[in-house]
Amino acid sequence: MKLKPIISDEMATVNSGVSEKVTLALFGVGRIGSVHLKSIARHLRIHLKYLVEEAVDIAKKALNDVGLEHVSIVNFKGVSQVLEDKSVQGVVVCTPTSTHQKVVTQALRAGKAVFCEKPVAHNSEAADECYKVAEECKLPLLCAFHKRFDPTFGPIIKRSRDGEIGQIRYIKTTLRDTMDPSFPGLSTLGGCFLDLALHDVDLACACIGEFPTTVSGDGHAFAKDIEKNKDFDQAIANLKFPSGALATIEMSRFCNYGYDQRLEVFGIEGMLSGSNVHDNHVVAFNSSGTSQPKLQASFPERYLESYYNEMDHFVKVIQGKEKLCISRIDAVAAIKIVEACEKAAKTKTIIDLTW
Amino acid sequence: MKLKPIISDEMATVNSGVSEKVTLALFGVGRIGSVHLKSIARHLRIHLKYLVEEAVDIAKKALNDVGLEHVSIVNFKGVSQVLEDKSVQGVVVCTPTSTHQKVVTQALRAGKAVFCEKPVAHNSEAADECYKVAEECKLPLLCAFHKRFDPTFGPIIKRSRDGEIGQIRYIKTTLRDTMDPSFPGLSTLGGCFLDLALHDVDLACACIGEFPTTVSGDGHAFAKDIEKNKDFDQAIANLKFPSGALATIEMSRFCNYGYDQRLEVFGIEGMLSGSNVHDNHVVAFNSSGTSQPKLQASFPERYLESYYNEMDHFVKVIQGKEKLCISRIDAVAAIKIVEACEKAAKTKTIIDLTW
Amino acid sequence: MKLKPIISDEMATVNSGVSEKVTLALFGVGRIGSVHLKSIARHLRIHLKYLVEEAVDIAKKALNDVGLEHVSIVNFKGVSQVLEDKSVQGVVVCTPTSTHQKVVTQALRAGKAVFCEKPVAHNSEAADECYKVAEECKLPLLCAFHKRFDPTFGPIIKRSRDGEIGQIRYIKTTLRDTMDPSFPGLSTLGGCFLDLALHDVDLACACIGEFPTTVSGDGHAFAKDIEKNKDFDQAIANLKFPSGALATIEMSRFCNYGYDQRLEVFGIEGMLSGSNVHDNHVVAFNSSGTSQPKLQASFPERYLESYYNEMDHFVKVIQGKEKLCISRIDAVAAIKIVEACEKAAKTKTIIDLTW
Amino acid sequence: MKLKPIISDEMATVNSGVSEKVTLALFGVGRIGSVHLKSIARHLRIHLKYLVEEAVDIAKKALNDVGLEHVSIVNFKGVSQVLEDKSVQGVVVCTPTSTHQKVVTQALRAGKAVFCEKPVAHNSEAADECYKVAEECKLPLLCAFHKRFDPTFGPIIKRSRDGEIGQIRYIKTTLRDTMDPSFPGLSTLGGCFLDLALHDVDLACACIGEFPTTVSGDGHAFAKDIEKNKDFDQAIANLKFPSGALATIEMSRFCNYGYDQRLEVFGIEGMLSGSNVHDNHVVAFNSSGTSQPKLQASFPERYLESYYNEMDHFVKVIQGKEKLCISRIDAVAAIKIVEACEKAAKTKTIIDLTW
Repeated sequence: MKLKPIISDEMATVNSGVSEKVTLALFGVGRIGSVHLKSIARHLRIHLKYLVEEAVDIAKKALNDVGLEHVSIVNFKGVSQVLEDKSVQGVVVCTPTSTHQKVVTQALRAGKAVFCEKPVAHNSEAADECYKVAEECKLPLLCAFHKRFDPTFGPIIKRSRDGEIGQIRYIKTTLRDTMDPSFPGLSTLGGCFLDLALHDVDLACACIGEFPTTVSGDGHAFAKDIEKNKDFDQAIANLKFPSGALATIEMSRFCNYGYDQRLEVFGIEGMLSGSNVHDNHVVAFNSSGTSQPKLQASFPERYLESYYNEMDHFVKVIQGKEKLCISRIDAVAAIKIVEACEKAAKTKTIIDLTW
Repeated sequence: MKLKPIISDEMATVNSGVSEKVTLALFGVGRIGSVHLKSIARHLRIHLKYLVEEAVDIAKKALNDVGLEHVSIVNFKGVSQVLEDKSVQGVVVCTPTSTHQKVVTQALRAGKAVFCEKPVAHNSEAADECYKVAEECKLPLLCAFHKRFDPTFGPIIKRSRDGEIGQIRYIKTTLRDTMDPSFPGLSTLGGCFLDLALHDVDLACACIGEFPTTVSGDGHAFAKDIEKNKDFDQAIANLKFPSGALATIEMSRFCNYGYDQRLEVFGIEGMLSGSNVHDNHVVAFNSSGTSQPKLQASFPERYLESYYNEMDHFVKVIQGKEKLCISRIDAVAAIKIVEACEKAAKTKTIIDLTW
Repeated sequence: MKLKPIISDEMATVNSGVSEKVTLALFGVGRIGSVHLKSIARHLRIHLKYLVEEAVDIAKKALNDVGLEHVSIVNFKGVSQVLEDKSVQGVVVCTPTSTHQKVVTQALRAGKAVFCEKPVAHNSEAADECYKVAEECKLPLLCAFHKRFDPTFGPIIKRSRDGEIGQIRYIKTTLRDTMDPSFPGLSTLGGCFLDLALHDVDLACACIGEFPTTVSGDGHAFAKDIEKNKDFDQAIANLKFPSGALATIEMSRFCNYGYDQRLEVFGIEGMLSGSNVHDNHVVAFNSSGTSQPKLQASFPERYLESYYNEMDHFVKVIQGKEKLCISRIDAVAAIKIVEACEKAAKTKTIIDLTW
Repeated sequence: MKLKPIISDEMATVNSGVSEKVTLALFGVGRIGSVHLKSIARHLRIHLKYLVEEAVDIAKKALNDVGLEHVSIVNFKGVSQVLEDKSVQGVVVCTPTSTHQKVVTQALRAGKAVFCEKPVAHNSEAADECYKVAEECKLPLLCAFHKRFDPTFGPIIKRSRDGEIGQIRYIKTTLRDTMDPSFPGLSTLGGCFLDLALHDVDLACACIGEFPTTVSGDGHAFAKDIEKNKDFDQAIANLKFPSGALATIEMSRFCNYGYDQRLEVFGIEGMLSGSNVHDNHVVAFNSSGTSQPKLQASFPERYLESYYNEMDHFVKVIQGKEKLCISRIDAVAAIKIVEACEKAAKTKTIIDLTW
């Protein structure tokens, strides 16, 4: 696999035809699926026709929660019916990562535009295969890097790329999740690099417009269940870019003060910093000091607008109003980079990447 | 008119019956009407059946903007049809203030719950008459004090009333609108006290749980068109409460740095402060200093959630899930207070109020 | 008494001769005297020759605290010796307000430059008399409005006067002292307007470059000892300026979260805001929220630099390096204004002022 | 060399005898020497008797700047006279790093307490030798880690060690200097790790109470003169501690928005963050947004209080009032760690450290 050394501007589009509303099917309504369902419900130009989900009770409840009781629930045996329905223009894939490649390629070959929750596939080669299919089918495949659509991080990417802070020298991202250390499912979590660092690696590359040529990483498992799983709950990835710029991606599974999500881009002409979002704007003063509320609890609150914006982008790509803003190389490179970082952390080595 | 000296807890409710969605009619889709239409469109449990509006083109565009093209547009001649439609459970009144009393009482007498944009009527006596009708009809009349539903100001009211900062001693509110000083319609604006100060007078009374017994005010017209209109574009109102607490309400028509909306409640045990909301969370550092984006531009952005929350409250009151949280005395007293403040400012006197 | 309607630029200077260090005598080392003594000890170009103080033990301790044990302590009977000492170039007056006029005029007539803690005298007429003597003697009399020399408020005055925010429309100051409500000396405190509001009235006038033509005020005594004293512990003063601009000065004797000192100047082109100073820059995040330390405890900490800067200005005025930056009219007008505000608050009237 | 694996609490003291003031000699008055001279001049309990400096003109000017014209200036030939003067209790060493070991050991052997600008010697072995001499002589040797004495960072160390945020998982420090990229002396600068990272490595170890067992580093020279010098102007050091905690030290020679100095300690129970210090507390709002002044320009402003506090600590150690708070192992370990980080960065390896 050879990827180009810069962020590609190539984008695919489909024409939406005459209909004003875009007709979609949603595959999977687990944790992230229900977040995207909320965006779909709020969007004034989406007609959701199918929800594909094995767990019918969960599906019913999820639809009821957003006032979309009329949507057809289909189990996986009924997928072909959904894909054969010509009125369906796009598919939103929120099934488990292990199934992404299969669902994405099926949907593309059935002529549907695809929105796929990250990662597009379980590894970089598989992700690249998905994009190959999308190119063959001349259909858009949107990798859901929602942080790109964030009202804070989005402008930082743009302003960094526009040169506002000159040559970029260092990028620092923080992503600390608010998982409960006593959560029984800790041992079943996916690897922390692919699960957590992927978005931030993409952010860093998007800000600087390059892919790193050297990476390293380190981490530790403080929780026993995570240690058993040979994973980390606290880790860093270090990236070095061809221009000499460095980046540090820091991630944690646990954070008790809220969902800590920051991005800092430092250049020779200044710094752009994306700060955290609190629950509200109350500041309280008393004899103990000054206090503000906690940071927003987790991704459904913190990225509410970002998720909506990326769904809106998908709609507009289908309608031919916007070009796909996340390219094949962006989606594939991010996976390749985190794979290398994870390997570096686990083998205590420094790894060179070629593009 | 005799009002009780504390904020009333009396609330009216209606039972929504079996239907899951609440059926509403919206009267008027001007500046504030289109804001409430947006909340209606986003709300998952509202069925908007009618939009009553003379300007059909504007109505069509407004509905189209929010994906509600199917809603029936009715002009004022068709009002009786709307009010006679038994399926309509509630009416949202966004017509000009001068028509409020008529529309509100008509809707109440037709058996509808009423949500009325503030002020409920053009003066305190007329507002009180509206509530008298609501009580006779045993129907809820919600005065749309949206700041009460704000994620920042709402908790400040609650925490102040719950005693977190002890005995309250001073309240300060800031409301600076972002009108353009060269706007040709300046001379046709309503009085600045009724238009701007009403919400903040209500906030102050709600935080302290009292109504003021002495008021004064002052102001100046910097813009010629406002001066011609014998109105002010910069003004203050001072309130003194029975407990000895003071409040200053400061208002301006013009503010070039964004929509400045603040609330500060100072008590013997601390201070609660509601700070402003910026466009996003980017902080930029360069050789000139540190900068953040502007404050949000105006009320549709700043109070997006507050408007949604108050519409949601209206729905839940109709469904019998919540009790009306703004009482007759709250709505009427606020008007009575601003009337006195305006008179004080124009006559350069200090005015005592009895309750 | 007729004062000019604008802040005067007239300043007096004295020539310091060849000596590199300026020789001073300090009169009084109570609460504020010990603060100025600290500035004197830190200043590299001051030689303190005398400390005039009846309470010799307190004087000794104060000098020892700042490493100036060699300074001569003189009681009030020895004042003539101090004033006749030709080597003494300036006198710093920190005696009780009731004695200011006598001490200031004696020192001036003895040929000394005078730094006088505010107010220059117990009322505006007496203050004006002091300045008359200073003019006759051609000697500088510096009224210690330390907030003018504050690293935050000083630039706000300058930038406001330089037109950065256009025509000024509203000024808001906050001054909340951290007195303990159970402090036994409450009943002996001076009036809160003269004691607290004076500095902020000066700040407001300095920012706008005008003196107000109408004032009002209001207040309340929450503490019984203050009520007995017919004083207020929470009060506001409202000023209206010839240009139409308004100002609100809010003051409190009690504040449990630290020494709250703010200044906000709002103009048609923007706002300049001076925010509070915390004990340090630690921000702590935990499961309860985000917290910062308290505001600095009181004036000795908050205005450490301001006091130093005003003493440095006094030194440079004596050395002929700077012109006196607070004029006769500034010092006298501020007293006249607070006198009127206090009268307005106590008589519940609105008072016009002529200049 | 074997160092203990935790921060030592062993401290040395000397008894100051009866004199109230401590008599010191300052060696060297270059950039950092003049900063310490300022602290000495401000300190009320220091008697500076000698300034040892070859450049007499610079010495004269420096003394004059702080009002200490009476201090004897001695050149290096006169050092023995200074060291033989029994009245001199302590020596402050601000000569070039290459001379530290010689000056420090001479002073110790002459019976003087020593305050030495960091690093105590040009490498960790030499530093350890210095401490060996100090222990033999039973005299205090203070390594001037001024950030430990900072009003913001000091409490973060203490609160971290006291367990406020539970088990520490990640530490992040930022140190960006405000050097001018066109400064002609760039090629003569010492290595950036030893020069910049030393303080922050010490901060990280002090917060966590451990020394790292694995380190890595990376960097880049953006400036040609720095590249010629085989040094970096932008670099990171990564530390891994025995407990599993990680730390990232980020440093830059150039920063155009002010002296960026931050410390963040993240634990399972919360986060402590030391934020930057701006020139003042003015916040300006206009049609472009909201702005604050630049960060303070460089170390003399930012660490004014820290430098004063560490000099005060030195005085109190001499007086027997405080125990030396930075131990032999702290000072030596920090150098050993940065040496390893620099080697790791230059050889692109990961290095294990044993203690």
